[in-house]
Formats: sequence, C-alpha cells, structure tokens
Amino acid sequence: MNGTPVFLLTMGDPAGIGPEIAVKALCEKRPYRVAVAGDTEILQKAADLCKLSPEFNIINTPNDAVNAENTINVLDMKEITTAQFTPGAPQASCGRAAYQYIIKAIELTMSGKAAGVVTNPISKESLKLAGINYPGHTEIFADKTGTANYSMVFLLDGVAVAHFTTHVSLRQAIELVTKGRVLNQIRLLHKSLKGLGIDPPRMAVAGLNPHAGENGQFGDEEIREIIPAINEAKTEGIDATGPLPPDTVFNRAFKGEFNGIVSMLHDHGFVALKSRDFEHGVNITVGLPIIRTSVGHGTAFDKAWRGTAGAESLVAAMDAAFEMSKSK
Amino acid sequence: MNGTPVFLLTMGDPAGIGPEIAVKALCEKRPYRVAVAGDTEILQKAADLCKLSPEFNIINTPNDAVNAENTINVLDMKEITTAQFTPGAPQASCGRAAYQYIIKAIELTMSGKAAGVVTNPISKESLKLAGINYPGHTEIFADKTGTANYSMVFLLDGVAVAHFTTHVSLRQAIELVTKGRVLNQIRLLHKSLKGLGIDPPRMAVAGLNPHAGENGQFGDEEIREIIPAINEAKTEGIDATGPLPPDTVFNRAFKGEFNGIVSMLHDHGFVALKSRDFEHGVNITVGLPIIRTSVGHGTAFDKAWRGTAGAESLVAAMDAAFEMSKSK
Repeated sequence: MNGTPVFLLTMGDPAGIGPEIAVKALCEKRPYRVAVAGDTEILQKAADLCKLSPEFNIINTPNDAVNAENTINVLDMKEITTAQFTPGAPQASCGRAAYQYIIKAIELTMSGKAAGVVTNPISKESLKLAGINYPGHTEIFADKTGTANYSMVFLLDGVAVAHFTTHVSLRQAIELVTKGRVLNQIRLLHKSLKGLGIDPPRMAVAGLNPHAGENGQFGDEEIREIIPAINEAKTEGIDATGPLPPDTVFNRAFKGEFNGIVSMLHDHGFVALKSRDFEHGVNITVGLPIIRTSVGHGTAFDKAWRGTAGAESLVAAMDAAFEMSKSK
Repeated sequence: MNGTPVFLLTMGDPAGIGPEIAVKALCEKRPYRVAVAGDTEILQKAADLCKLSPEFNIINTPNDAVNAENTINVLDMKEITTAQFTPGAPQASCGRAAYQYIIKAIELTMSGKAAGVVTNPISKESLKLAGINYPGHTEIFADKTGTANYSMVFLLDGVAVAHFTTHVSLRQAIELVTKGRVLNQIRLLHKSLKGLGIDPPRMAVAGLNPHAGENGQFGDEEIREIIPAINEAKTEGIDATGPLPPDTVFNRAFKGEFNGIVSMLHDHGFVALKSRDFEHGVNITVGLPIIRTSVGHGTAFDKAWRGTAGAESLVAAMDAAFEMSKSK
C-alpha cells in the first residue's frame, strides 16, 4: 500500500447513529486513512444534518483513499437510499445493507487491501428482520474469517477487559470456567495488550465467586481451575495477578494497578464498564487474522438522525485499530 | 424517652477509622441524639489527632444523652485502652472490644432503651483472632435478635439495592433464586424503602442471567422463578419492573428511573455500587426487629489513625437511622 495505512469503516445500520458519527469523525484529518464501506447519499444527508460540508471522494479500492482535511473516502456500495428507510427504527432493509458493508470490509481486509476494519453499530433486530441470524458483529467476524479461538475485549480508559463468557446462561458460564479456557483467555488478552501498545501488560484475573471464593469458602472454581491457569501463565512470563474479588478488581485497574482484566462473567465486566463510561469505550475482537475494532455503544435509535450523537468512541476505535496495525 | 430519639453508635474496631470518624461526625449537632458504645480514652485520643476538642458526656443509660454542639455522649465501656492495641492492624484485643460494643448496643436497643443502632466498621480478621466467628455485622444482628428473614440493603445516592444472595458460591446462589425467595426480597425492599422515607417505591428487579436471559435464550430462571415473583408482587400493589438486564438496571436507577433494586447476585450489586461511590453509601439490615444502619466502608486499616478519614458515610448512616425511626 502507498502512504499511511487505510482502514475500512462500516457505515453501520443506516437508521442508527452510524452515518452521522462517521461524518463527524472523518471530517478531521488523522495520521492514517479511512474509507467508509457504505452509501454516499446517506452520508451526504448525515453531513447536511450535522451542518458539515465534507468532500466525498468516491473510490473503487481502499488504496485510492486520500488523507485530507474535510474529505471522506467512500466505497459507495449503493445498498440503500435515504428514501428506503425510516430513521430510528429496526427494519429489514437496514439490516441487509449493514450486513453487506461488513462483508465487503471483511473481504477487502482479508485479501490484504486494507489494514483493518472499524465497525459502526448494527441492530440485531434489523439483521433478524433481514433473515440474517447473527447475535452481533463478533460472531460475523469469527465466522467469515474462520476463527474459533477469539475473545471480546473492551477497552476503556487504558484498561482492557476480556470477557471470558458472554451470551450464555449463568449455569453454562460456570461450566466454561476450566483451566484450559482460562489460560487461553489470559494468553489472548496478554497478546492483545501488546498489540494495543499497552506494554508491559499488567494483568488481573477476576474470580468467579463472591470474594473470589474466599479460599474455597464460597465455591471452589478458583482453586480447581483459575489458580492453576494463572500459575501456568506465570511460568510463561505473563504478569497475571489473581483471582481477585470481582467487586474490587475493576476499581483497582481503573486506579492504575492493572491494564488488563480477564472477567469470568458477562455481568462482572459489563456491570463495571457500564457503571463507568461505557459509551466512550472501544470493543475489540482479538484472535482474528485481521484487526477489528468497534464503537462501544449501540445504534442509539432513540437519538439517531438528530445530528447530536458524539463521535468520541468511534475516534477511539479508529485510533485503537491504528495502534494495533503498528505492531501487526 | 425524653426529647429527640437517641441512637447508639458502636465505636467499631479501635484500630480502624471508627474512633476518628465517630468524633468528627458527633462534634456537629444533629436533629437527634447519639451515644457511643465505646471507650472514652480512645475517643479522646482520636479527637486530639483530629485537632477537635469535644466535651465527653459520660452516661450510664442512653436516655441521659444530651443533644449539644461539640458534646459527645459515651457509654464508657472500658473494654480497651490505646496502650492495648496497634493502630491499623487486625488483632484479638480489638476484635473482642468491637464485639462487646455491638452486643451492648443490640441489648439496649432490643430492650427499648435506644431508637436504633448505627455501626462503625469492624474487622472480620480481628473477630476471628478473638475467637468470634461471624462473617460480619449482619449475621451478628440476625443472630442476637433471633431474625431469620432479613436482607442486606445498600443505600447510595437515593437508590436502595437489596442483595438477594451474598456470601455463597455462584452455584448455590443460582439455586437460591426461587419464586418464594425473590418475592420475599421484593416485599422486604418495598417495606424498607417506605421506612427510609423513599415513597412511593419504584422498584426494579434485576435478572440473574446475561440480558436477563433474553426471553429464555440464556437461562430460564427469569421465566421460571423471577417473573412469577414479580407478577405476584404486582398483584399486591407493589410497583416492580423486571427482570431487567443486570448490566443496565443500575444505571437506569441512578439516573432516576427506580429507587430500589433487587439484585440476584453479590457481584451484580457490589460491582455496580463499588464502581460508583461505595465509600459514601449506607448499609442497612432490613427485617430485624430493631433499626440498624452502618457505614458502607470498612475499617480502612491502611488509613486509620491519621485523622484524615471522612465521616460522610457515617453521617449518612445516622441520618438514615433517624429517617427510619420516624416511620417505625
């Protein structure tokens, strides 16, 4: 590739806040190039709404993207027009279009034509209405890149939280806490921290039970599975502390003690992150053969197409992708 | 009783921050009376440290307490002297003394001589060293008042969180989520909110599984146990919404939508509370025959006896006890 790396930004669900935050984020020049996989007509309308007047540079291949103030590179996919959807609601037409943007971005990146993918929010409901049955982006990326060993990492205020279990019942989540799986998560997070330029990684492993089991008094998964995994990680030279009580480990990390946390449950990590400042976080899928980062928030249908949505999380997601590309 | 109600404040673990925050909180006049169950010599030393010069009013019975600026009423128990302990560390002598203050306060309140008990932090470690095996205050109060049906409620920024399960393994916690127990918790929290003057109660019930099970996709405890309990509570006229996803319900409450939350797991509620501002919260045991409130924080051995600890949580705990006494 010529010049700075180029990242593909999916436009996200057209009815959500994706188009407007994309326009806001891309009017400013950055130390890398970005091309939107989306629809120019919709981006133009979003720019009008936000009272911005960018120049749209319609390109055929990512490497034609330019790096200039007030210029937005678009792979104009002509999937949908503003006349074909209602802002602020899930609908089949938007689910279909949003999915195509993602597929295009993955294909181009897998074939080496772009440095990574940054995604705008999609609606699971819209996807479903379009007959596309994925719970979310992460599963689409894993599937289309043929990846089995991946993890969802959330980056907020310099702390990366890897979610060991996500969309499974609490009963199933407990069964998934095995030494091998915990060790795998520790290794994945360790690698991701380095990839994110967070080096040296100082990691904490949260417990599963209250007070991390208090030496086996309230549950023994820590003793049977988690501690052996931590010990093995240590023999590999990984700086991992734990298991620590789930209700104090996040505060300790945000105060600077750790820069990475392996969280055993969806609602340890997400309760902590959402209590803090979820909207400004970045979601990263690690373990994929390509770089993929995402805004932390959703489509925000209730606030979409008013021109008021903030692009901070998107800018953070693009910057994280750039950071990861340096060490790739 | 003559005059305003009188509450008993335990001095807490002598080696912790209890003595200094007690002195700070009690130098100011409040619309109720407080008597410390503790040791005057230690309180005097704590006052010196904080550069405060209160008058100590040594009393024999709570009703002799006065309500005056810069005057601290003490039931001087002579359990321990400053020469008999090391500040900032767990030790048997302190565990023994702290336990005696609690027992005295419970006895006097159970016999109608005081309006309620407010507790300063104790150390489980000190208790253990003294051969007293309770996991904490809550269990001592339940035991000494013969109460089986109680709950730990945490009050922070106008939101009361009832913890359905606390110091049990995650596996056991799941088994405890039955319709009858959930309904009992909803009723207890409803009653406590009214007792705290938070009226009308607008309650939310958190789910157990991620996304509250997403209609049975990730676990069915919501459908089998929690929803039937909520429905029965509604027939009793209780305003209870749920089950809501554990990772969004706390934010919604703190933004004003709810003033009470029933949390299924220790580490749903405590992760949310500690991510917010745990130190300033108030811990309340509901279901007891007497009023009992407590500071939200611990002994803070690492900061104790420097005179720098803040008394905000203690003042909030005393005020909550007073509020509860009005509707008792």
